[in-house]
Amino acid sequence: MSGDPHAWAKELSTLHDHAWHRLIRGVHDRHAPARHPTLATVSAEGLPQARTVVLRKADRTSARLEIHTNLFSPKVAELKATPVAALHVWDSGSRLQIRLQADVVIAHGDDVADAWSRVPEPSRTAYSCSAVPGSLIPESLAYESTPDAAAFAVVHLYIRSMDLLHLGSQHRRAQFVRDSDWVGRWVAP
Amino acid sequence: MSGDPHAWAKELSTLHDHAWHRLIRGVHDRHAPARHPTLATVSAEGLPQARTVVLRKADRTSARLEIHTNLFSPKVAELKATPVAALHVWDSGSRLQIRLQADVVIAHGDDVADAWSRVPEPSRTAYSCSAVPGSLIPESLAYESTPDAAAFAVVHLYIRSMDLLHLGSQHRRAQFVRDSDWVGRWVAP
Repeated sequence: MSGDPHAWAKELSTLHDHAWHRLIRGVHDRHAPARHPTLATVSAEGLPQARTVVLRKADRTSARLEIHTNLFSPKVAELKATPVAALHVWDSGSRLQIRLQADVVIAHGDDVADAWSRVPEPSRTAYSCSAVPGSLIPESLAYESTPDAAAFAVVHLYIRSMDLLHLGSQHRRAQFVRDSDWVGRWVAP
Repeated sequence: MSGDPHAWAKELSTLHDHAWHRLIRGVHDRHAPARHPTLATVSAEGLPQARTVVLRKADRTSARLEIHTNLFSPKVAELKATPVAALHVWDSGSRLQIRLQADVVIAHGDDVADAWSRVPEPSRTAYSCSAVPGSLIPESLAYESTPDAAAFAVVHLYIRSMDLLHLGSQHRRAQFVRDSDWVGRWVAP
């Protein structure tokens, strides 16, 4: 209908377009919901783990996303064991839940020297070899955060499938998969 | 320090208290961040899945949370295969990430008749036998949502461990586990 700000939810192609607009917005706008997705992985014991990450790149042509992490963090160990991640965004403004499943490739060292050079100085303290995330420390601030390029990793997420759920006056949900060239199909919400 | 609105983050006990305050707030305030956590599970294929849920109960004494779901939804099938879930909340006002790992028990039928009787009429359409969530449909709105008590399930989450990360001028992170009676220990952020 004219005047419906969420008319994009009514067709598969515009719904898919909108989700990508919101993901790309997350890369460029630190206040956008897709700036801070939840990344879910599977631990070595086969159990779920979830934490906030920062979305660094979103490329629709290759259906690829990128995040940065400490190479020595548990999530990297988990992703080496099970190289598939789920990424979740709840975009309240769009009333849209974006769920992605992606194959993961982790790059570090020389392969990410360019990316490292573009990490702003204040952000580099997240990438330190001396304070392995999650390791026991005697006091709350008893950790060092000396930046170290060797601790910097880029996680490439090659999207397999997207599940989009719009909560409007009537709910709509669709799934889009790489193997079907992102054509999309409606599913029950 | 006096005047620091996040002074609670500096001690293990007050950090733990604060996380519970925020979880409980999520049950009672539909605008609180903990109202809509992300629930991560492991699929039958051993892959991660994540989606938004609504927090319905939070009891600190038993360290138990509760959500409601459609008994025929994929997440119930996943939780039957791997009865452990991760729950994730990013509480922006508190600059606090709450990560939980929990053992899951799913109740339905006669065991949840009382809970069903308290589900408001408009919310009941989420619990329908005729529209299995995620099933293929020919058009976006080609699904029925006739409420059915037989599709209503209560997911009990018995928390095993909590991982709390406060992002302040200095970051602090601590872990609390049921088996240590929630004493808590600091870890590197």
